[in-house]
Amino acid sequence: PELTGQKGTANEGFKFKVRGRFMYDSAYTENPNNAIATKDLGFTTRVRRVRLGVEGGLPGGFGYKAEFDFANAAVGFGDVVLSYRKPNSPWELTLGNFESLDGLEQITSSRFISFVERAQFNEAFNNTRRLGFAATYISADNVFRASIGAFNDTINADRGLNDDYILAARVTYSPQALGGQLHFGGNYQYRKFQTNTLGITYQARPFTQNTDTRFISTAGIAARGDQIFGLEAVGIFGPLHVTAEGQYNKVDVIRPTEVLTDGDIATGSRFAGDADFFGFYAEAGYWFTGETRGFSNGLWNRTKVLNPIDKGGPGAWQLNARYDYLDLTNRVQNGAAGLVAPNFVNGGTQTGYLASLIWQPIDYVRFTLQYTHGVVEGGARQSAVNGAARCPANSGAGVDCDFSFNVGVLRAAFDF
Amino acid sequence: PELTGQKGTANEGFKFKVRGRFMYDSAYTENPNNAIATKDLGFTTRVRRVRLGVEGGLPGGFGYKAEFDFANAAVGFGDVVLSYRKPNSPWELTLGNFESLDGLEQITSSRFISFVERAQFNEAFNNTRRLGFAATYISADNVFRASIGAFNDTINADRGLNDDYILAARVTYSPQALGGQLHFGGNYQYRKFQTNTLGITYQARPFTQNTDTRFISTAGIAARGDQIFGLEAVGIFGPLHVTAEGQYNKVDVIRPTEVLTDGDIATGSRFAGDADFFGFYAEAGYWFTGETRGFSNGLWNRTKVLNPIDKGGPGAWQLNARYDYLDLTNRVQNGAAGLVAPNFVNGGTQTGYLASLIWQPIDYVRFTLQYTHGVVEGGARQSAVNGAARCPANSGAGVDCDFSFNVGVLRAAFDF
Amino acid sequence: PELTGQKGTANEGFKFKVRGRFMYDSAYTENPNNAIATKDLGFTTRVRRVRLGVEGGLPGGFGYKAEFDFANAAVGFGDVVLSYRKPNSPWELTLGNFESLDGLEQITSSRFISFVERAQFNEAFNNTRRLGFAATYISADNVFRASIGAFNDTINADRGLNDDYILAARVTYSPQALGGQLHFGGNYQYRKFQTNTLGITYQARPFTQNTDTRFISTAGIAARGDQIFGLEAVGIFGPLHVTAEGQYNKVDVIRPTEVLTDGDIATGSRFAGDADFFGFYAEAGYWFTGETRGFSNGLWNRTKVLNPIDKGGPGAWQLNARYDYLDLTNRVQNGAAGLVAPNFVNGGTQTGYLASLIWQPIDYVRFTLQYTHGVVEGGARQSAVNGAARCPANSGAGVDCDFSFNVGVLRAAFDF
Repeated sequence: PELTGQKGTANEGFKFKVRGRFMYDSAYTENPNNAIATKDLGFTTRVRRVRLGVEGGLPGGFGYKAEFDFANAAVGFGDVVLSYRKPNSPWELTLGNFESLDGLEQITSSRFISFVERAQFNEAFNNTRRLGFAATYISADNVFRASIGAFNDTINADRGLNDDYILAARVTYSPQALGGQLHFGGNYQYRKFQTNTLGITYQARPFTQNTDTRFISTAGIAARGDQIFGLEAVGIFGPLHVTAEGQYNKVDVIRPTEVLTDGDIATGSRFAGDADFFGFYAEAGYWFTGETRGFSNGLWNRTKVLNPIDKGGPGAWQLNARYDYLDLTNRVQNGAAGLVAPNFVNGGTQTGYLASLIWQPIDYVRFTLQYTHGVVEGGARQSAVNGAARCPANSGAGVDCDFSFNVGVLRAAFDF
Repeated sequence: PELTGQKGTANEGFKFKVRGRFMYDSAYTENPNNAIATKDLGFTTRVRRVRLGVEGGLPGGFGYKAEFDFANAAVGFGDVVLSYRKPNSPWELTLGNFESLDGLEQITSSRFISFVERAQFNEAFNNTRRLGFAATYISADNVFRASIGAFNDTINADRGLNDDYILAARVTYSPQALGGQLHFGGNYQYRKFQTNTLGITYQARPFTQNTDTRFISTAGIAARGDQIFGLEAVGIFGPLHVTAEGQYNKVDVIRPTEVLTDGDIATGSRFAGDADFFGFYAEAGYWFTGETRGFSNGLWNRTKVLNPIDKGGPGAWQLNARYDYLDLTNRVQNGAAGLVAPNFVNGGTQTGYLASLIWQPIDYVRFTLQYTHGVVEGGARQSAVNGAARCPANSGAGVDCDFSFNVGVLRAAFDF
Repeated sequence: PELTGQKGTANEGFKFKVRGRFMYDSAYTENPNNAIATKDLGFTTRVRRVRLGVEGGLPGGFGYKAEFDFANAAVGFGDVVLSYRKPNSPWELTLGNFESLDGLEQITSSRFISFVERAQFNEAFNNTRRLGFAATYISADNVFRASIGAFNDTINADRGLNDDYILAARVTYSPQALGGQLHFGGNYQYRKFQTNTLGITYQARPFTQNTDTRFISTAGIAARGDQIFGLEAVGIFGPLHVTAEGQYNKVDVIRPTEVLTDGDIATGSRFAGDADFFGFYAEAGYWFTGETRGFSNGLWNRTKVLNPIDKGGPGAWQLNARYDYLDLTNRVQNGAAGLVAPNFVNGGTQTGYLASLIWQPIDYVRFTLQYTHGVVEGGARQSAVNGAARCPANSGAGVDCDFSFNVGVLRAAFDF
């Protein structure tokens, strides 16, 4: 609950709120053909997020938020920011730990996404919060927003070197039109990695964070940085919403013969040409109980329950379907043979067919039941799952190797 | 302090409270005969608990609690739960991280127990919070309560395998009778351990958590799980209370010749027969200043100070005495000789004679001064403490080996 | 914002406040002559403090505070204390985790100091919070205060041995005189180290905590304890303030031939005589916008902005200058030759010339831009920075070896 300082008192202009969330996931992740030697799949339960924090407003247009995540008995962070918007100004300034302008679903709170996890490309491309600052231009009718920002390392980092950085921009146009709410956006990140660990791994879990086993992964790639180009689209028409988002990632790899200077250190395999990867999803959802999915300021927001159970209603019920594709396979040297470095990144592709049933008995409590059918083509797991006879090591493009798996997840969540 | 949403406002049905506690212990633990080579005994100070959290109510009968413990600069957890009880329904549902229905004193808040630590068997048998859910039937007069629950791993666990589980039940009957408050209860836990670490150690500290040295311990026992059977009894008559509780633990051990399959891994010593262990305590306490020990919902609760010091009174003063016995010694193979595995678990027995003086100057501040005389029979420490001449290695049942020690503790505590 | 229980209600006598702070530092630390082989200098950003906590008052004169720091994704602590002052009593009692009466600037909140970091001697001499208790006598006019305290280990320590302790005292006299606020103080600490790690390292960073590289350090010294003697002086005259503080540290070293008993363990180099070290600073500051630097209870406090930006004003602007000197070099054996152990502690001296520009747009938001020119004489870094030809290994007193460096820091901070 929010406290608001009364007019005419010393507290005028102050707002304050203690906030937090709890997300508790039970998942069954199929071990494909029971062929991966791990106990890390199968049935698991886990607290995905358990957060405590504050948010407030100060006189003169300042706002702040600080949220801590203690899942797995470690200290993590949500937004930790100071923002400023002079009354009636079109500009908002933000400073602290927040998402690096990295796309609609990633910036949207985890409380308001349609599935248990965000689209694969967000995990694979390491879209996450960074320390930095941003300036946002907001049109008077709040339909057009444009942000630019500069970011440095993550807030978790200890003292000392952090010369990695991100320059980023996001532009959104979210008009009311066609009898509904539309949204179109583009985002861009120019990212440089830390010079004492020049490298990156792109990988994605099987649509749940209850396991650390990944079916697709590029393994470590020696690289100086990458660039991410993203597009966003949304349409909300009463209880129905449709949305799609994609990101293309172009990696500035370090070549086999390249000589590093200034004490720079590369990690991971070197490749003969710049790699590029790609992911996107398309989703549709429908509130059977008549709600409209919340959307504001160019982001998904809380959906208000029309007939909550405390008024004798059924709560809000929504069904969502999503297609989610991620391609981590790339031939970086045209014409060269071989499915391994330095000519070929054999990360594999993973496709998810997802359905989720959401029940919100009241605004602040949400249960999500999700089923996912996943298909993996190529990548390093094929030999283990399909047998070396059918799929030799480094089965990649041109070799017909794939396997599928099923995942079920139930999330119980509340926030305050 | 609790915030309550006013009727007729948008906040109707909401309650909110920031909560926490601080417990700061200074202890002197005698090193028996000065014979144990460690600096871990003697005088120590330590913060036992330092917690911050929230608790609240949501419209329609939902409630939540989330409490974090930062003692020793690590992240720990109190209750992190979502509960639901439809108005006027006899059923309450709870989901999250909470005690696995594991007995009166264990489920009672640490703020309201009579001594600095709970009875030994709670520590020895690893009674603690788990992720899970429970359903409780509550009679209309709240005299009879019956809970069943299913639990999985602890909330601290990371991603991946957690196929350990607990099925548990607790039944309590707490009538007003004989001019006082009575309480009788029974609890049961069926526990299975994680298949990649099939084993457990039962052990107890010397009645303070300021040291990591234990005088009694079974050391690691290879086991698939155990069953715990507990009984509870309470009588409160004005300023006097008496209470007793016991738990019997039957361990499903892994035998020396047993072959494990499915990648299961056993840890600890193998024994030739199922082991059983036992602990209980009996306690009496008296408020000299006339208070009555708080009790509600089948659990101990806060005692309200009659004449707090802010009203010029003396605060509340209570004296408690307890007998606490724990037996971790067991011959698992009848007729077999030897005081070691696989025929004999030589954990030792530890008996505590405890007295505590409690002063609550106001409701939320409490000082506890505790003296304990402990006696250890058998167990692995006898040779070191009493000399190998008198007590050879693995002195156990039938060998007259024991030693005693004294412990003094002062706890300063407040909560909010 | 503070909640206060209303008179005549059940909450009378209660006060409660959620509190916290965020300090985000960007720094450039020059690598002297580019000669130190590290990537730990140069440009870095870092969250210096990010805290969440509570503070409150209870009926009868009790107060409490508990603040947690999550910077670098670890659990740290601010004050975690219970205090008691009977209404109208001159005595205040404090218990918990707080500064060991260790000097004006160290005890002052980091929110109210004039520079990004406190004076070097505070870091070098390990002035910090400890678990303990203190009693303070406060004169009726609050001009004279005298505290004594006893402290044990830090709150971060785990179970087990902590037989280190501190006995400490601080006396302050803070009269209104000469048309302004004056303050004179003295502090003293008698410190004993833990007997299983008898030793200490005195060292200081280059006026920013964004790096772990130190230019001066004594390295480990085997010692049983030390004594710290400190003096404090302040004068505040309208927008101007001047202040100076110094501490002298006398170390009780363990001599080369000394034989340790009782299982005691020494760490670090042994020296032939007791060492002493010294640090002090002098500072002046001026609020161009007319504010007066906050001071109360013998400590610096929040400066209230006269014309905050939410009232259309410029906020508060202050310029500060400081001279900060620390000497970690000491000849412990008079007449003995050599610049190394056991006759000479070659820690080096570091002198800082600091200027800071502070902007507080409103009371709770503060930006600090700081420039520092540092000079290091002697110490272990000279060979690396100046070359072995000019400065051989262990260049110390009598050898003319020094280097200088520059540091720029920008801090953005808010608190609530």
